[in-house]
Amino acid sequence: MVGMHMDRYMKFLAERTSSLAASEIRELLKLTEGKDVISFAGGLPDPSVFPKKELGEIAREVIISVGERALQYSPTRGVTAFIEALKGFAAKHNVKVRGEDDVVVTTGAQEAIYLASKVLFDEKDVVAVEEPTYLAALNVIKFFKAKPLAIPVDHEGMRVDLLEEALRRGVKVKALYTNATAQNPSGTTMSLERRKHLLELASSYDFLILEDDPYGYFVFEGESPTPIKTLDEEGRVIYISTFSKILAPGLRIGWMLGPKELMNYAELAKQNVDLHSSTLSQFIVMEAIRRGTVEATIEKAKSLYRVKRDYMLQALEENMGGLASWTKPIGGLFVLVSLKERVDTRKMLYKAIERGVAYVPGASFFVSRDGSHTMRLNYSYPSLEQIREGVRRLAATVKEEVRQA
Amino acid sequence: MVGMHMDRYMKFLAERTSSLAASEIRELLKLTEGKDVISFAGGLPDPSVFPKKELGEIAREVIISVGERALQYSPTRGVTAFIEALKGFAAKHNVKVRGEDDVVVTTGAQEAIYLASKVLFDEKDVVAVEEPTYLAALNVIKFFKAKPLAIPVDHEGMRVDLLEEALRRGVKVKALYTNATAQNPSGTTMSLERRKHLLELASSYDFLILEDDPYGYFVFEGESPTPIKTLDEEGRVIYISTFSKILAPGLRIGWMLGPKELMNYAELAKQNVDLHSSTLSQFIVMEAIRRGTVEATIEKAKSLYRVKRDYMLQALEENMGGLASWTKPIGGLFVLVSLKERVDTRKMLYKAIERGVAYVPGASFFVSRDGSHTMRLNYSYPSLEQIREGVRRLAATVKEEVRQA
Repeated sequence: MVGMHMDRYMKFLAERTSSLAASEIRELLKLTEGKDVISFAGGLPDPSVFPKKELGEIAREVIISVGERALQYSPTRGVTAFIEALKGFAAKHNVKVRGEDDVVVTTGAQEAIYLASKVLFDEKDVVAVEEPTYLAALNVIKFFKAKPLAIPVDHEGMRVDLLEEALRRGVKVKALYTNATAQNPSGTTMSLERRKHLLELASSYDFLILEDDPYGYFVFEGESPTPIKTLDEEGRVIYISTFSKILAPGLRIGWMLGPKELMNYAELAKQNVDLHSSTLSQFIVMEAIRRGTVEATIEKAKSLYRVKRDYMLQALEENMGGLASWTKPIGGLFVLVSLKERVDTRKMLYKAIERGVAYVPGASFFVSRDGSHTMRLNYSYPSLEQIREGVRRLAATVKEEVRQA
Repeated sequence: MVGMHMDRYMKFLAERTSSLAASEIRELLKLTEGKDVISFAGGLPDPSVFPKKELGEIAREVIISVGERALQYSPTRGVTAFIEALKGFAAKHNVKVRGEDDVVVTTGAQEAIYLASKVLFDEKDVVAVEEPTYLAALNVIKFFKAKPLAIPVDHEGMRVDLLEEALRRGVKVKALYTNATAQNPSGTTMSLERRKHLLELASSYDFLILEDDPYGYFVFEGESPTPIKTLDEEGRVIYISTFSKILAPGLRIGWMLGPKELMNYAELAKQNVDLHSSTLSQFIVMEAIRRGTVEATIEKAKSLYRVKRDYMLQALEENMGGLASWTKPIGGLFVLVSLKERVDTRKMLYKAIERGVAYVPGASFFVSRDGSHTMRLNYSYPSLEQIREGVRRLAATVKEEVRQA
């Protein structure tokens, strides 16, 4: 017998696995790679932001001068000196580090979300999330069989008043996951007033907050909003961030900051997942913080993404005015477009790809409401020319779809 | 209120977390760091093996020449060109890559063990393991609430005949985890005959094999044994390995090779854990394979660890003859010492540390039998002088313990 058939492997799968399926959209988008399709579907930083020269030198110097440590195993929690550097970096960016806090370094922010969930969530625990919300966080919550409670977002971020209504009705929330600043996918930012209100609710109704903040460091309009973590007096916030957008995602360095006791458990939870994150990447990021490379990259990202955002908003205005509405993000990488007509953006995607443009249909980001007429557009990766041409192709697709509807 | 007390966080923990506790031994060993204690407790490669100069240059060149890819997000499964390089590397080292096989790149071999378990193991599934076995694998199996079935090891590796007895008795085994070559912690290697027998059993009793092979690449006595993967005709083996011991652990690059269908699920399982492993590390390892740096490091590791092993065996012979017996590993990083008298090595550890030497008590590696009179000694990290002096201190501790017993 040569090889076992697919059905022979099925029976070996854990129950949790049988329900996993490759996302149809993801597979479809994979097919467009390398083709003449302008993609607004990804969430990649513009690689022109990567400080290649500086990181190349840093990597070489770190390996040659302290390679016996930078290439060696390191503590599960993170390289000790890097953790200290991270605390300084956090404080500099107005992320409050309390005396009772500690840090765990993770393989990207994704692993921080995974580990926090692994530590906290049991089957049927209720986890409040924005609606729409970050798909990969939603998948983790569902993986641990917790129940997402969807709270709609408006132009000031999560409708905390609606969360309060649910809590008053007696819904027992264990934790809340939020992308409060320049939210993925909606691009909205939670107002200061709502952040404070949220913390009051967390205190009264006794829940934790997972604040996932990849974008707060390069807000391009006005001041960066104060992190919920900074407003927290009670130790209810686990703050999660990453160097993926402000240095380079390929290093896979994320981190979380929260109450020591919870971080101790997160460390134990990490031990059996991957022992520790790349020591070399930690040394590189530490040195990039020390040399000011991270701050310089933040400035570069701010100005480049501001231009790209403006370019996309203008292209939308010129081509889609009257057909759709969209958010005006103060940061981050995405605009969420809502079509006025009831067009199903999932079905429309096939036609869009035929016309040479791709996006992520919004429905996947929604838990309870219907997001089928929305789509998420990324502006950080495509060039200005691609943004212009891509929006033109998209508008043509929408117009045809509306005509046929 | 400033801060929540420990007991306020306890109630937020998932059930699986409440049972996690920091290992007492691990905490104790942490305390010895930086003190005048010769440690045989770790499992670190000798950093003099790391090709610092070559990796420093490779890192710089990779970042500067293809940083827009090496610093960017990359596919969950691994960088495509790296996966091809890995298949070539595997084939070169007599690890058979079947047409139906595929690869998933992981954050160290630990993550491969975690992901394979996440894909396969349900509560109460029986997973056969060697006894003693690799502690971190055991912890993963237990985390997914699978039941380890302990099969004793002798000088030819796992007692496959005893596994067969259990299977004949009707024990339903879903999978088997093995460190067949230079096993951690026992240092034994499974004979070719037993490898073949194991595959026959896997076929007759329909189970999968996780072959974790970190050490097969630098066997220092005779030929490297043929991997079970290479003998497998039916696609029952998921082969796991790592560059931690043959290049540098700080890069955190492990990999698994197995039937496409299972690797597809492992990829899905990895998506929500960490999206992907360090792109930069993958590019560095790929280039280190291409330039022959990995092969050169393997040769260096082989000759250095052979000398260190011989030195430790000789020191044991000179100091512990009559007090203990020990394994004679053909590779790997460890010797397992069994004390002849019924000395509890856990209790003895405190006294050993007082005398300035540390080890890992063997009990943690055992599931069902009593390993309390054994201890695992690492010879790869300490210097020759430390090996000599450490074994002398250890022997003095044992002699005192035996006298008092």
